[in-house]
Amino acid sequence: TTLYILRLCPAVNKSSVLGQCTPGNNLSSAPQMGWGDLGVFGHPAKETPNLDAMAAQGMLLTNFYTANPLCSPSRAALLTGRLPVRNGFYTTNGHARNAYTPQEIVGGISKDEILLPAMLKKNGYVSKIVGKWHLGHRPAYLPLENGFDEWFGAPNCHFGPYNSSITPNIPVYNNSEMLGRYYEEFPINVKTGESNLTQIFLKEGLEFIHRQTKAQQPFFLYWAPDATHTPLYASRSFLGKSQRGRYGDAVMELDYSVGQILSSLQSLGIEKNTFVFFTSDNGAALTSRTNGGSNGPFLCGKETTFEGGMREPAIAWWPGNIKEGTVSQQLANVMDLFSTCLSLAGISAPDDRVLDGLDLTPVLLNLSHSLENRPIFYYRGNEMMAVRVGQFKAHYWTWTNSMEEFKQGVNFCAGQDVPGVTTHNQTEYTLQPIIFHLGRDPGEKFPLSVLTKEYLDALRSVSAVVEYHEKTLVPGVPQLNMCDQAVMNWAPAGCEKLGKCLDAPKSKPWKCSWPH
Amino acid sequence: TTLYILRLCPAVNKSSVLGQCTPGNNLSSAPQMGWGDLGVFGHPAKETPNLDAMAAQGMLLTNFYTANPLCSPSRAALLTGRLPVRNGFYTTNGHARNAYTPQEIVGGISKDEILLPAMLKKNGYVSKIVGKWHLGHRPAYLPLENGFDEWFGAPNCHFGPYNSSITPNIPVYNNSEMLGRYYEEFPINVKTGESNLTQIFLKEGLEFIHRQTKAQQPFFLYWAPDATHTPLYASRSFLGKSQRGRYGDAVMELDYSVGQILSSLQSLGIEKNTFVFFTSDNGAALTSRTNGGSNGPFLCGKETTFEGGMREPAIAWWPGNIKEGTVSQQLANVMDLFSTCLSLAGISAPDDRVLDGLDLTPVLLNLSHSLENRPIFYYRGNEMMAVRVGQFKAHYWTWTNSMEEFKQGVNFCAGQDVPGVTTHNQTEYTLQPIIFHLGRDPGEKFPLSVLTKEYLDALRSVSAVVEYHEKTLVPGVPQLNMCDQAVMNWAPAGCEKLGKCLDAPKSKPWKCSWPH
Repeated sequence: TTLYILRLCPAVNKSSVLGQCTPGNNLSSAPQMGWGDLGVFGHPAKETPNLDAMAAQGMLLTNFYTANPLCSPSRAALLTGRLPVRNGFYTTNGHARNAYTPQEIVGGISKDEILLPAMLKKNGYVSKIVGKWHLGHRPAYLPLENGFDEWFGAPNCHFGPYNSSITPNIPVYNNSEMLGRYYEEFPINVKTGESNLTQIFLKEGLEFIHRQTKAQQPFFLYWAPDATHTPLYASRSFLGKSQRGRYGDAVMELDYSVGQILSSLQSLGIEKNTFVFFTSDNGAALTSRTNGGSNGPFLCGKETTFEGGMREPAIAWWPGNIKEGTVSQQLANVMDLFSTCLSLAGISAPDDRVLDGLDLTPVLLNLSHSLENRPIFYYRGNEMMAVRVGQFKAHYWTWTNSMEEFKQGVNFCAGQDVPGVTTHNQTEYTLQPIIFHLGRDPGEKFPLSVLTKEYLDALRSVSAVVEYHEKTLVPGVPQLNMCDQAVMNWAPAGCEKLGKCLDAPKSKPWKCSWPH
Repeated sequence: TTLYILRLCPAVNKSSVLGQCTPGNNLSSAPQMGWGDLGVFGHPAKETPNLDAMAAQGMLLTNFYTANPLCSPSRAALLTGRLPVRNGFYTTNGHARNAYTPQEIVGGISKDEILLPAMLKKNGYVSKIVGKWHLGHRPAYLPLENGFDEWFGAPNCHFGPYNSSITPNIPVYNNSEMLGRYYEEFPINVKTGESNLTQIFLKEGLEFIHRQTKAQQPFFLYWAPDATHTPLYASRSFLGKSQRGRYGDAVMELDYSVGQILSSLQSLGIEKNTFVFFTSDNGAALTSRTNGGSNGPFLCGKETTFEGGMREPAIAWWPGNIKEGTVSQQLANVMDLFSTCLSLAGISAPDDRVLDGLDLTPVLLNLSHSLENRPIFYYRGNEMMAVRVGQFKAHYWTWTNSMEEFKQGVNFCAGQDVPGVTTHNQTEYTLQPIIFHLGRDPGEKFPLSVLTKEYLDALRSVSAVVEYHEKTLVPGVPQLNMCDQAVMNWAPAGCEKLGKCLDAPKSKPWKCSWPH
């Protein structure tokens, strides 16, 4: 879950409004919030009153996608406006594998990339990230080296607790220095699920908003909590409150926090020049009952290139500008938030690179019902698994998780089985893709018959898009190939002051193993 | 889909308001509208603006159930307030079989049952049904013999067209006499899907509302169109308009019609003493792409006792009385509409029989957050397949459809497969039921481990409910056992005037075959 808040320049004219752009969210190897987790997207528990109200006051986007079904690449795409295969957030260690930034990752966001906060700086924006970063934890890759002015949060997921002689616990930073570590100064009780981290993240976000508002400063807040990521946690006052178990408790606390942030913007009187966007990094993981997320009517979940893995909840909010209670069917993408925020901030997009994002402003402001018929690409690593053009989605490769894992009871599509589609071997359909009509069949259950005119027409239009895409694609240098125990968070900046430096082992790099 | 409209007595005091009670809907052997078909329940196409607005102005019930996953028994339950196993709308021809009222059915609603309109008559209500009846088509079973004052519609589903020397087409009645037949005077173009029937049903409903309002007459309108039932149809102006194909076109026309009805109540100024309820007969059929309905996050569909077969979309609307934009988690049931309408009309419920419905008024009027922790029973025929108590649902028997059908490509749970749960043989778990926690796992994917305390506690509370239910249950005489070609709609009342009487074959009754 991420709230993406762009406070527009106070010296505003209509074409250069600022607000708050808060995108992305819990990105990682465990459950994220899925499309179907919000009441407004149909979850029967209806436990997200604040997000539902946000949608009622703003615009719901029902065809909004991530750029990758896993956290790190999704967030890299959001902040660069570019597909992971371009910005380097992918691996070539195996065919069609998702990769992210665990502690042992050597790489991170490339210096050749320009991130949204660095662009926003050109027009005087101050930017803060609160929560999980996930674009690399070695010093050069951290937020303050990449355009953010402030940071409160962690470079990696909150996995743990670890035995610190083998693996360091993940550090929590305040700007460029660590404040402590998860499970040490920042406790998470894995047994009870209690942690006040979301409340801390909320406080940090609100403090930033208040301070920048008082200074009449345009700002960008990227609020990226990760309570819905395993190990799930919630504050004491939310634990046990949901019908949905601990996952639901975490969702309720995030929902509460979004409500607090929005009402804060309103009580500060800046809601009319603050653009807020809510989305998630990737679909909910469906592997087990305890992970608990819902992708609504869609197929499979996190890690997969089916709709459940990549279609995301999405709400745009900007009172007085975005018409309340509207719904857009525009095919859109986290990468669009890059272009959209630049447009709102009156900053020209970089012209020295290919951008995959579109400026959604005309759709948001209801000046246009839909932008060009843009495709959605579904990648694993550098393999384009599927592509959506209009209502048609063509799968060139299918895969859920490996047969070995499946036999051990791990199933990325628990309870679902579409023959020839939810395959446990990587299955190639490049010569004759499986095509679904997502309007009639959003759940990807009934492939079009290859003998129909509809199939042939769809194939023709999709093929043209794919041909152009592949002809013009220049992959970036893959950043997620190498791992090394030595690069873990042994001695983050600031550890000396706290007496929390640990000794790193000798460097022994290896090719990371990406099983999915 | 059914709109259930109860116009409360104009001589109103708070405790005896009337309105319009329109329950039930397309009930039958093909797709109905499912839980997930409405935008407000999470369908990504978001093509039900009027139903979504109805929910925004009223109360959404997320735990609302039918009494049977098939049309006829569902409707019989709604109009009697009693489970089909009590009111006789079931079969004993096979174990755990759904039955309905095709043309060859001999039986119908028992004379021993009291239907809602007959009860409402006690306080001066005039009642009309518009659309499909489905409680038996032989003369004694028709609406005007069972409490309704007016009827426009058909006794059976709109299957056809038939060769009338073998099978008569289904008659369309105006009150007690036929006006013509489907595919003859009332065309449905099976190829193009064009039919103006929904518009005719809308006009009939609106005319009744206007006429009764003018006469200051309390009324009950049961508006039961069937366009979302195969063969799907829509008027020319709706055909091709949906993203979802012909099913979506039909949904859009029903949604439009509901909007017309509600705005009509408002322009007549009677919305504040008119209670309106929207629901469906059973879950959407998931068997093929062309049927197209959605049960959102739930398992399987029509004909099954999984959530997808029996949890229904449900919206209560009564401006000024039901608080706008509310959501209720109350476990509720179509049978509750019987008791609720009587309560609203100030009429005592019959005390000479067991009623399964509860009066929902305290929940609707927000006087109580939840009524007694009432169970939901999931029957096929006279077999209780499952029961829900609180968040726990225990399956005593599982079955989807037969292995023979499945091998031929028919799958009532297309795209879904939960091992040991979506079984193709009737599988008995009476000694150790499969139990799901529907809060954490609304999709019925992860059975509780039988070794946990949670399982044992749940089993104890469910067992107590089941024991009481079974001890006190007195099944009604089964009405859906016998079939006969001779009883088909050969010569409905009024056929003489139209020259449309057909010769019936000799009576050769047989035990109906119920494969599901």
